[in-house]
Amino acid sequence: MMPAETTDIKLYLDKLKGVTDALLVRYLPREDEEPQLLHRAMRYSVMAGGKRLRPILAYAAYEYCGGSLQEETPVVYPAMAALEFVHTYSLIHDDLPCMDDDDLRRGIPTCHKKFGEAVAVLAGDALHDIAFELMASTGLPQAVTELATAIGTEGMLGGQMADIEAEGRKVSREDVINIHRRKTGALIRCSVRVGALLADADEAALQRLSAYGEKIGLAFQIIDDILDVEGDQELMGKKVGSDSRKQKATYPEAVGIETAYADANKLIREAITVFDEYEDNVLKLLAAYIGQRKS
Amino acid sequence: MMPAETTDIKLYLDKLKGVTDALLVRYLPREDEEPQLLHRAMRYSVMAGGKRLRPILAYAAYEYCGGSLQEETPVVYPAMAALEFVHTYSLIHDDLPCMDDDDLRRGIPTCHKKFGEAVAVLAGDALHDIAFELMASTGLPQAVTELATAIGTEGMLGGQMADIEAEGRKVSREDVINIHRRKTGALIRCSVRVGALLADADEAALQRLSAYGEKIGLAFQIIDDILDVEGDQELMGKKVGSDSRKQKATYPEAVGIETAYADANKLIREAITVFDEYEDNVLKLLAAYIGQRKS
Repeated sequence: MMPAETTDIKLYLDKLKGVTDALLVRYLPREDEEPQLLHRAMRYSVMAGGKRLRPILAYAAYEYCGGSLQEETPVVYPAMAALEFVHTYSLIHDDLPCMDDDDLRRGIPTCHKKFGEAVAVLAGDALHDIAFELMASTGLPQAVTELATAIGTEGMLGGQMADIEAEGRKVSREDVINIHRRKTGALIRCSVRVGALLADADEAALQRLSAYGEKIGLAFQIIDDILDVEGDQELMGKKVGSDSRKQKATYPEAVGIETAYADANKLIREAITVFDEYEDNVLKLLAAYIGQRKS
Repeated sequence: MMPAETTDIKLYLDKLKGVTDALLVRYLPREDEEPQLLHRAMRYSVMAGGKRLRPILAYAAYEYCGGSLQEETPVVYPAMAALEFVHTYSLIHDDLPCMDDDDLRRGIPTCHKKFGEAVAVLAGDALHDIAFELMASTGLPQAVTELATAIGTEGMLGGQMADIEAEGRKVSREDVINIHRRKTGALIRCSVRVGALLADADEAALQRLSAYGEKIGLAFQIIDDILDVEGDQELMGKKVGSDSRKQKATYPEAVGIETAYADANKLIREAITVFDEYEDNVLKLLAAYIGQRKS
């Protein structure tokens, strides 16, 4: 039997995944409005599935910091959709033939395979754009700035560039950490921070949650690398080994699989100890869940 | 000899082009900072030249509405850079092989020809991103919303999609107006509106300037189409006739060149009459200038 807290966090994740999916449907432009093809491509990629980890983290941080959930549309809702739209935009552009050239994503054809390259470029651009519109609708310019910084050349885009440049090269642990922290970690950290900012968290809480976000962000990507080596194809819904085929800079490649496991676990423990030892909270459970994920 | 006011507007444009260029240099990420290649590509495309029409319109509208220019960095400055960065991002993605497949832009190789497709996609994304960061730095969430709406699927991206879908098809005047209004007009209108909003313009002024922006935006693109048919290659710095070779939906193609001229002139006159007959202002001169442009 699963321990009670694991069951609880799974229920929490399922509930919030449902909330997020409903938000995404609400905020996506309608498919029966022009430009229909572009709107269809956006919806296709956003609704292809996914863990909705970034919106869930934003929500959990918002809740943890005492953000109001009384309104019909709490201020964190558009931010949650914005974070997932940005994530999807990055996947669509990453999958393009001139980038990673992937045909499948979450078990179905990638956006450019389904709609053609031109539409895929524009669909990514449009999701990027609508994310900022939603983030601005929170009324907090700092939330827009946080997002822009996290996914700009200091963050996600810089990580994607470094990732491309590192292909086929032997990289050190520091190199991989540097790539992962920017490519994946920055947006995960931003998700936690934006949730906290929208709840009007004080500086001390913000600092603690930033450290938490940074650690789980890096751990998340290390585990992603590990799963690409020894994950279960059926659970993952995609082929394993693609990093290796593409000669990607991965954490196991740099330090070996044992050390990769150990480092990921250490980061998860550190993320959990950002909070008081006896404090029970969802963010701790979320960190543990990320540490144990199998897909 | 040129009439005095033409000389004046040329001086004004030269001065503001200089101001804008200096702002762009200031706000672009440094080329000696990582990711260097990406930063080089961004700078290459932004500094390849251009009329800087959108930032100049934002400035002129801001000035017209009484926005303060006393500060070392007036609040319209980051918005001016944001508008030009967005314009450049749209050109970079538009030039990609899967879109218009252009090798030359402003007389030099396009971004993907110079840096490769992957870097060009990311450079466009990064300029898109930094534009929102700058717009958010004005502290006015509405400025971010205006930009996002103007360049989203209702605006610029919708226009690009319609433009692609119209290739090779016989289009009506209404079709072309619909494409041009979104693809080019929306961002030009937005530039004027953002300048006015940042100057805290009242609703009446904002409505007047919106109408002005809408009319010059459409006129600008009609004249662009005309110049592609009968412009001077040397003045333009690019080959004419590319719209026709690509079977693009153009205004002259839909209505003939004479009617195109007449409609553009009518729009320019209407833009000018948005203001009082005896009022002297730069926006009127700018409209007239756009109506007479040869490149």
